[in-house]
Amino acid sequence: MTSLKQFRVWLTVAAICISTLGTNSGFAQSPDRKTQLADYIRPFVGTQGEGNTYPGAVAPFGMLQLSPDTEDSLWETASGYEYSDSSIIGFSLTHLSGTGIPDLGDFPFIPEVGTPKFIPGPKSNPELGYRSPYSHQDESASAGYYQVRLKKNGVNIELTAADRSGLLRFTFPQTDSACIVTDLHHVLRWEVMWSDIRVLNDSTVTGYHVVNGWAKDRHLYYAARYSRPFDDFGIIKDGRPVVYNGYRFRSRSEASGKNLQFFAHYQARKDEAVLVKVAVSAVSVENALNNLDAEIPGWDFEKVHQDTRNKWNRELAKILIDGSQQEKETFYTAMYHAFLAPNIYEDVNGDYRGLDQGIHKADGFTNYTIFSLWDTYRATHPLFALIQSRRDADMINSMLAHYDQSVEHLLPVWSLQGNETWCMIGYHAVPVIVDAYLKGVKGFDPERAYDAVKTTAMNPHYDNVAAYTKLGWVPCDKENESVSKTLEYAYDDYCVAQMSKALGKTGDYDYFMKRAGAYKNLFDSTYGLMRGKDSEGKWRTPFDPHKYSEGGDFTEGTSWQYSWYVPQDVQGLIALMGGKEKFAKKLDSLFVMQADSSEGVDDIQGRIGEYWHGNEPSHHITLLYDYAGQPWKTQQRVHQVMQSQYGNKPNSLSGNDDCGQMSAWYIFNALGFYPVCPGSDYYAIGTPALKKAVVHLSNDKTFTVTSENLSDANFYVQSVNLNGKSWNSPFLPFDELKNGGSITFTMGPEPNKNWGTK
Amino acid sequence: MTSLKQFRVWLTVAAICISTLGTNSGFAQSPDRKTQLADYIRPFVGTQGEGNTYPGAVAPFGMLQLSPDTEDSLWETASGYEYSDSSIIGFSLTHLSGTGIPDLGDFPFIPEVGTPKFIPGPKSNPELGYRSPYSHQDESASAGYYQVRLKKNGVNIELTAADRSGLLRFTFPQTDSACIVTDLHHVLRWEVMWSDIRVLNDSTVTGYHVVNGWAKDRHLYYAARYSRPFDDFGIIKDGRPVVYNGYRFRSRSEASGKNLQFFAHYQARKDEAVLVKVAVSAVSVENALNNLDAEIPGWDFEKVHQDTRNKWNRELAKILIDGSQQEKETFYTAMYHAFLAPNIYEDVNGDYRGLDQGIHKADGFTNYTIFSLWDTYRATHPLFALIQSRRDADMINSMLAHYDQSVEHLLPVWSLQGNETWCMIGYHAVPVIVDAYLKGVKGFDPERAYDAVKTTAMNPHYDNVAAYTKLGWVPCDKENESVSKTLEYAYDDYCVAQMSKALGKTGDYDYFMKRAGAYKNLFDSTYGLMRGKDSEGKWRTPFDPHKYSEGGDFTEGTSWQYSWYVPQDVQGLIALMGGKEKFAKKLDSLFVMQADSSEGVDDIQGRIGEYWHGNEPSHHITLLYDYAGQPWKTQQRVHQVMQSQYGNKPNSLSGNDDCGQMSAWYIFNALGFYPVCPGSDYYAIGTPALKKAVVHLSNDKTFTVTSENLSDANFYVQSVNLNGKSWNSPFLPFDELKNGGSITFTMGPEPNKNWGTK
Repeated sequence: MTSLKQFRVWLTVAAICISTLGTNSGFAQSPDRKTQLADYIRPFVGTQGEGNTYPGAVAPFGMLQLSPDTEDSLWETASGYEYSDSSIIGFSLTHLSGTGIPDLGDFPFIPEVGTPKFIPGPKSNPELGYRSPYSHQDESASAGYYQVRLKKNGVNIELTAADRSGLLRFTFPQTDSACIVTDLHHVLRWEVMWSDIRVLNDSTVTGYHVVNGWAKDRHLYYAARYSRPFDDFGIIKDGRPVVYNGYRFRSRSEASGKNLQFFAHYQARKDEAVLVKVAVSAVSVENALNNLDAEIPGWDFEKVHQDTRNKWNRELAKILIDGSQQEKETFYTAMYHAFLAPNIYEDVNGDYRGLDQGIHKADGFTNYTIFSLWDTYRATHPLFALIQSRRDADMINSMLAHYDQSVEHLLPVWSLQGNETWCMIGYHAVPVIVDAYLKGVKGFDPERAYDAVKTTAMNPHYDNVAAYTKLGWVPCDKENESVSKTLEYAYDDYCVAQMSKALGKTGDYDYFMKRAGAYKNLFDSTYGLMRGKDSEGKWRTPFDPHKYSEGGDFTEGTSWQYSWYVPQDVQGLIALMGGKEKFAKKLDSLFVMQADSSEGVDDIQGRIGEYWHGNEPSHHITLLYDYAGQPWKTQQRVHQVMQSQYGNKPNSLSGNDDCGQMSAWYIFNALGFYPVCPGSDYYAIGTPALKKAVVHLSNDKTFTVTSENLSDANFYVQSVNLNGKSWNSPFLPFDELKNGGSITFTMGPEPNKNWGTK
Repeated sequence: MTSLKQFRVWLTVAAICISTLGTNSGFAQSPDRKTQLADYIRPFVGTQGEGNTYPGAVAPFGMLQLSPDTEDSLWETASGYEYSDSSIIGFSLTHLSGTGIPDLGDFPFIPEVGTPKFIPGPKSNPELGYRSPYSHQDESASAGYYQVRLKKNGVNIELTAADRSGLLRFTFPQTDSACIVTDLHHVLRWEVMWSDIRVLNDSTVTGYHVVNGWAKDRHLYYAARYSRPFDDFGIIKDGRPVVYNGYRFRSRSEASGKNLQFFAHYQARKDEAVLVKVAVSAVSVENALNNLDAEIPGWDFEKVHQDTRNKWNRELAKILIDGSQQEKETFYTAMYHAFLAPNIYEDVNGDYRGLDQGIHKADGFTNYTIFSLWDTYRATHPLFALIQSRRDADMINSMLAHYDQSVEHLLPVWSLQGNETWCMIGYHAVPVIVDAYLKGVKGFDPERAYDAVKTTAMNPHYDNVAAYTKLGWVPCDKENESVSKTLEYAYDDYCVAQMSKALGKTGDYDYFMKRAGAYKNLFDSTYGLMRGKDSEGKWRTPFDPHKYSEGGDFTEGTSWQYSWYVPQDVQGLIALMGGKEKFAKKLDSLFVMQADSSEGVDDIQGRIGEYWHGNEPSHHITLLYDYAGQPWKTQQRVHQVMQSQYGNKPNSLSGNDDCGQMSAWYIFNALGFYPVCPGSDYYAIGTPALKKAVVHLSNDKTFTVTSENLSDANFYVQSVNLNGKSWNSPFLPFDELKNGGSITFTMGPEPNKNWGTK
């Protein structure tokens, strides 16, 4: 461990640390000594199919995500980019990573040659608009960088990004009619309700729009500076130029309306580059300009790119691994995806737009937005609690600010740029806060946080929590998704209880622990499964336990999937199901049976029987064998999922990455353990995927994972040594990890049914 | 004069000063010793017909104008209230006074009894909406107060207003279903593009909308506090209640959309009053709440009302007059109307929304908006320069801020709540600034102001000023209203020249004085009238000098009306027209001839032949006889206009009051003189309408006007004594007025053709 002390200070250039590790620490030396961690990032991973990631340029947790859009309406292409598409609409400034619902795609910039068009045009005929065909041969992407050459006009576009700002470099062919169009009207799927634009001078433009999208009321400003003064410029409103018609004056330099475009016109020499600096702000044009000028004072594209690469190097260095090129690409791309969201959501001066649509100053913290909490409470935030604790604290501070600004006095459910989308169920800000608190994350006020946690859990309006509190379950005749809600509330309540206990609030502890047992009320012993119950206590009839029901009793799942959701009391669930043998047998059957219907759920893939890794309700299930005395089955299933559903290809993600949850699942499991129950004091051990990994905890301690005899075939755990002790439990206590140390797995080709089975 | 020294300090309660004057200063004693100046205000003046004033509650230059709306679409009812209408839509928070184009009418509050309706409903059938019939018998209005009892439901509504906030008092009949609806979707004539609303607690609501109106991009926030917690409340969106439907959560306490209403529901005892405090802000909800709480901390309706009455008393005390009840009502209502606009446009903390849509802090000045400059440069601002110089300086500072924020680097043309409407023609911020500077108004930076004045006059984009500069006229083949524009540019340029001279910029003086002579280029000696000329120097053909042309060569007028528009060089015009005799004879004919067509100009009344007092191009014309040696004709025509077109009745204004210009015309002329050429150093003398008037100049000097032998029949000036000297000129030099003093008119029934004719 001594030789690793130097890494306790964050490293400026991770390349140095890799080569050092290569010689001093048993890490295989990188083939190219100059290879940096960021070089392993494959931004295209997850862009084909259901992953819903984007390939563009972005800084860690960046507020601006400069990326190409190929699709602007399909739910299946929520990030705006689908690898299988063959034409690009434009290069917009903001994108969601891995969500199931599209939004953002603000302010696309589009290079054109010849008479410019101001509408996107259809995929079937790009010539009708500014859309252009492209080929993956002409495209590349890496950390903080994206490039493509458009087939329509030969323009080469390069993108790079700082935190709130970015640079676009357009290299035109020789032409006297080069255009760079900005379409304020175009967003992904939703509707711009109002916008304005101003041409401040011969090379600066600012704009604004409010979008009625998934985020119902989203205000965003942008600023753009052009490296060359315009030869000419124009504003298009409702398809017509904004010009003075000789009657009553009208400035050609500004407009407001629902449908606005701006174009900058240039004569271009061959291979001449025009650069555009852009920045966004949710607060004001002035702040967007400030963000721009503060972050990118000059025109050095390479410097911006390199600075952002270095940021990625620093972030990825939080876990140093040994492995093959493919393993490194898979792992570091997972870390990249896990570190894309939540996004910074404040200007360089600390201003941000709150949930109340008011302008606030983030005082003493960095404000973040985009909390996909139904997903990210499971593994993303537990990962942050370990290796991003300062950001995790600020995310919690951001959630507390949201709570303060909430007219319902609720912590965020699924918040998005000053909006609450109310997407998905539960109150999973609670496990995020509780897990962080219990894992020792500093930087937020626990009493203030607990007040928000408890108030949220007691909300009288939200999703029949009041009826749940009274009855012990969410009644299926009053509320959709009542089983999923009951089960998730019960888990969230367990978390409230853990925090109340830690804070010495024993009355609250007893109260919420009682609520945490509510899952028992929906267990129908006839089926051995969870089943809806109405407000009079009658079971939902008819009941099809394999039916996937939108708007039924389950949330994006079946009873067979949701019946495993008692992370806070797996032993209690095992008892209900008739003991460990029956439980394990039942679990075996999950991986081979098929749900009756999967209509409307095309975006959930990664199916192993009725276990669907492509969506979050399944994410803890493979680990449950640990609790039933059969950890080798956990090892087998976890290995199977890691091998078959992750990788370094565009189609390597089997479901929505969901702001990093799918990736965080991989990161934990590749290390050999997973937080089945965030808010508890342990992890469940699965099977490691890496020969070696050094985890730099946020407290500057280092936890090293070593896997001996690991190979594709040797994925069964034979024995474990934890901090110098032989370890025969399939659970890893947080106490054994928190002060640093090491875990060594010895692997083999067959299950060791004596390990971890007691 | 000695006994008047006490008035050099602004008086807190004007009533005291009236009774003091009554005994000490020769003023007739008020019939009721407690009568205050504000009691003479008749808010209904101008509400019937073309005046386009509103009768509601407002403080001097107030940012909030609480007033009933009877009409929401007709151009003819730009203020929202037409006295002839028989039903009221609601009571909205903002109104324009006397404009020719409707806008504002934000956030109407509507009391309902029974099942509430959320649309206005048509005049023809108020039952279809929240509109209610009313009778003038059940209605009253005074300074800072408005009251009406609605016929539909018997609710009595009272309104009062502070600077940025107001109070509505609803007195309901006994009912278990009293409602107060706020309609965020309803504005006068134009379209709400987006809005949001939040119910902060059981008695506080805030909202926002952006309106695409005459002001194209107008953002406004409001806050409302209710004196009683709601028994129930609701939000309506697109006609349907915002409620949680049991699927995915939706708060009933907030919404965003294009079409939102809020209702507060109460059980009401008979004659129980529910009060609502309201405030607006163009900046934020937080600022609207701050405005509200700072200005109206309690619930004392009478105190707010009395405080605003006292403000009006102080403002009206700037000119103390002797006269009949009707004369006082007419005069003080004119002052009231002249002091309604421009409006304060900043929050209590100094924040305001600028022309660039950014939020700015008014540093060292009070920010104003609503500059109807084509109208108000004529008499309103010249009046302000004399008796509202501090406000006038801040209005100029506001215009300079507008200039700084203007993407075209132009001073305001017709600015409206953070927008430039580009309404009307010319660059008449110039005469406002120049007149103020030359009249000694302090409180703005002359060099900064001159820079804005000159840059505005040199703008290369605006309304063919560039061609005018080159050719000497605005070419009629390139630009509409080319004759009016040429004439008004030439006058504005005279003003630039006066300021450049005063600042020692002799080069600029020569340049702009040359431009000031451009009127000569459009004088067609064949007709003896002004006529359009194209870019090749050819006269407009065919030419009908009596044709009123929308979009032709004249702005809301005919050649016969506009041909008199050379205020900067009347003697030059007289020379062109063949000398004083011919000039006077031609002028005589104006008052008896008829324009060929008056289609589309129903709102310009007050017609004496082709002299149309109902619109500004005529406003200086009656005074022009002074320049031709026939001042008695000025006296006769001015007297005729004052007698026939002003008064204390709803229909007493013959045309749009235009933010006080029509009223300011009266104020000056009632004092016996008028600023034919703002920016010059003199006034033209007409005929006084008051026996005595004491004008408190802003420099604490007092100028007293006395009219001996004045009567309805004795309106001809026989002689004048100015500051102790016999005065035989029809012009009053500013130098004779600026240090205080007195003018005494001796009046008679017949013209004295020896006075003022040299």
